[in-house]
Amino acid sequence: MNIPRTSNPRIVIIGGGFAGIALARKLSKQEVQVVLLDRNNYHNFQPLLYQVSTGGLEPDSIAYPIRKILKNFPNFYFRLADVESIDSENNDLKTNIGTLSFDYLVVASGSKTNYFGNSEIEKHSMAMKTIPQSLDLRSLILENFEDALLTSDLNERNALMNFVIVGGGPTGVELAGALAEIKKGILPKDYPDLDTRMAQINLVQSSDCLLKGMSVEASEKAEEFLEKLGVIVWKNLRITNYDGTTATTNSELSFRTETLVWAAGVQGAIIKGLDDEAFVTRGNRILVNEYNQINGFENIFAIGDIACMVSDEFPAGFPMMAQPAIQQGQQLGDNMLRLLEDKPMKPFKYKDKGSMATIGRNKAVVDMKNFKFQGVFAWYVWMFVHLFFLIGFRNRMVVFVNWVYNYIRFDREARLIIRPYKKKLKENK
Amino acid sequence: MNIPRTSNPRIVIIGGGFAGIALARKLSKQEVQVVLLDRNNYHNFQPLLYQVSTGGLEPDSIAYPIRKILKNFPNFYFRLADVESIDSENNDLKTNIGTLSFDYLVVASGSKTNYFGNSEIEKHSMAMKTIPQSLDLRSLILENFEDALLTSDLNERNALMNFVIVGGGPTGVELAGALAEIKKGILPKDYPDLDTRMAQINLVQSSDCLLKGMSVEASEKAEEFLEKLGVIVWKNLRITNYDGTTATTNSELSFRTETLVWAAGVQGAIIKGLDDEAFVTRGNRILVNEYNQINGFENIFAIGDIACMVSDEFPAGFPMMAQPAIQQGQQLGDNMLRLLEDKPMKPFKYKDKGSMATIGRNKAVVDMKNFKFQGVFAWYVWMFVHLFFLIGFRNRMVVFVNWVYNYIRFDREARLIIRPYKKKLKENK
Repeated sequence: MNIPRTSNPRIVIIGGGFAGIALARKLSKQEVQVVLLDRNNYHNFQPLLYQVSTGGLEPDSIAYPIRKILKNFPNFYFRLADVESIDSENNDLKTNIGTLSFDYLVVASGSKTNYFGNSEIEKHSMAMKTIPQSLDLRSLILENFEDALLTSDLNERNALMNFVIVGGGPTGVELAGALAEIKKGILPKDYPDLDTRMAQINLVQSSDCLLKGMSVEASEKAEEFLEKLGVIVWKNLRITNYDGTTATTNSELSFRTETLVWAAGVQGAIIKGLDDEAFVTRGNRILVNEYNQINGFENIFAIGDIACMVSDEFPAGFPMMAQPAIQQGQQLGDNMLRLLEDKPMKPFKYKDKGSMATIGRNKAVVDMKNFKFQGVFAWYVWMFVHLFFLIGFRNRMVVFVNWVYNYIRFDREARLIIRPYKKKLKENK
Repeated sequence: MNIPRTSNPRIVIIGGGFAGIALARKLSKQEVQVVLLDRNNYHNFQPLLYQVSTGGLEPDSIAYPIRKILKNFPNFYFRLADVESIDSENNDLKTNIGTLSFDYLVVASGSKTNYFGNSEIEKHSMAMKTIPQSLDLRSLILENFEDALLTSDLNERNALMNFVIVGGGPTGVELAGALAEIKKGILPKDYPDLDTRMAQINLVQSSDCLLKGMSVEASEKAEEFLEKLGVIVWKNLRITNYDGTTATTNSELSFRTETLVWAAGVQGAIIKGLDDEAFVTRGNRILVNEYNQINGFENIFAIGDIACMVSDEFPAGFPMMAQPAIQQGQQLGDNMLRLLEDKPMKPFKYKDKGSMATIGRNKAVVDMKNFKFQGVFAWYVWMFVHLFFLIGFRNRMVVFVNWVYNYIRFDREARLIIRPYKKKLKENK
């Protein structure tokens, strides 16, 4: 890779997600050379992907060019690259565009969907972790409605209008709520010749409560909101397989559906070279100490979803969400500067700023440390917080315009099939 | 196709572009059944595609769901379909989703890129007639800059940063201007380690003036504006071939480039069954009379780009632009209602509202019947007119926000490689 070596130490960051960007920002004005690698040229605001899938937002408004985030910082290099392996002994790494040596390495490669080894589900289900995936889901949902108009086979029409969302975490809950609003507000107007009642939104959760990790109040209220919107919530039910048409479960129940969205689990996006048992712990995350250092290394770190830092309060590591990622990125930035000045690093302390999920119009749940609330006010708080954490003034404005419009008009205008998904499926066969 | 026959006459419209939508709107509240067929589920505002390609706008803000345009109209059916052939004798047509009979048929299938039979150019060049094409071009431009960073071969870097735009019409002029602004305002900040001077924007025009069809003042001023922005304008030069790396011309000159955009010609998007010599005239357009009727038929019409209506002022048919399409759509709507009431139809009269093109920030040219002007004011007029003709309040707001932002910040934030283009190329090989 064409990057000059200077007298400054080189810090390589893998991944431009919340953690990587927070770290890069901290380091950008320092006497270090920062090289950020990502397979996309943009930072992707994952919490709003479900709105892209459901036509409420354009993808461009929740993505932000990484080069722009750090354009005014000298000593900063970005490369569009897929990291293939890390050689921790020799301090270099291999990518699809060449090798790169480092003095310090920070793995912030995030997480990916966990299918728990079920390749059938992996092959046939839709995921919603990236922008292209979210756009594919948007296309598929709309293509299904178009196809439902064409068939006179009731079973087939049923399968086309039946949505199964697996996983009752924030992603599943938010997607189910948004789909229910489409069913209620948009389907009848856009498809007057379809019987809207056939559109069923099923949310399947393997345990006995939604939004695991949030309070009982939030969980119960979310379920109540979803049911008010017409979502069918299945608890204590596990999807065992999906062949593209029928989803089987651990009970006698099965679903006939053309659209199964898998939001039932994530795992660390491990990179070869750090995939050893010595490093990897449950959920394919890399075990780190309280300084985010990887076991056995002074100069190799992991932050964000990929990092598993065990604490008394979180014996399985922090939740794989934006907040721990941002905080770890920021703190590691400070710690690396201390390290370079031979000062002692400070252990990471997680400040739990609470968590939240939105179910639909005027319906959200918010858990803060000493204050839990649900409903309209929670919904406003949810919107405000998400606008605040979006990067870029233009993105905030565009998202804001869309939300105001959608709110006033009960609408979601971006119901566009820009790249048909079924056609792609056929071509790949 | 699953569409009930009622006592109302069925009017089938092929194409949801400017012409088809204008017509459908006129017919929507009448005692007719309207079936609109399009291969996309959205109306695409083509005049702004170049801003999608250059990261100034998101695609979702210039596309509008066709179902939404006509959602409150009874008797209106939309089907996502590719029309394969028309049987004008039996009054029905074949599509990829089944056959459909009609009482009246209106062909508004628009235009497509004309490669004048050169399959090499067709294979290797980029077009900008559809949203996916525009997004592919956006990806390619950005991927080229990323790749330019990686190579130490100067010739290759040159080819990656050398852009050749073929065709000096509005599309070519607007794209060249936007690329020149990226070179000036964004490249140096985003890619401080690239020598920006290597990015050359070449605009190649086969005749001796740009913006053919506009006034001499407009043409000359456009050229002056482009040259001020650093675009290299080649007149009286024709690209004769392009193999993906080198573009040859009718002179000794050749260009080494990884990106050749073909905006040098359009042709009617003819449909089988009407592709007979009896109907088709130059540019693959269908000859129509002053009522937009196709030769030999009472009940089959063509409007917009596909229709060639010869008049004294326009012996080769009206220009293939939005205005004639909209006006023909509206007028045909009125005429069809007259026809149904056994009243005589009125011949089409084109009201030339003028034409315009924008070159860049504060730089546009406008020709109105008795008033031609160029520069800042023209630029405001251009923006106002384009906002006005965009369909949908949300789209207008989002485009407006983007334009204000881009103007104030000298920026184009949507420089996102969402679906890499080169990867797709490789996969298709």
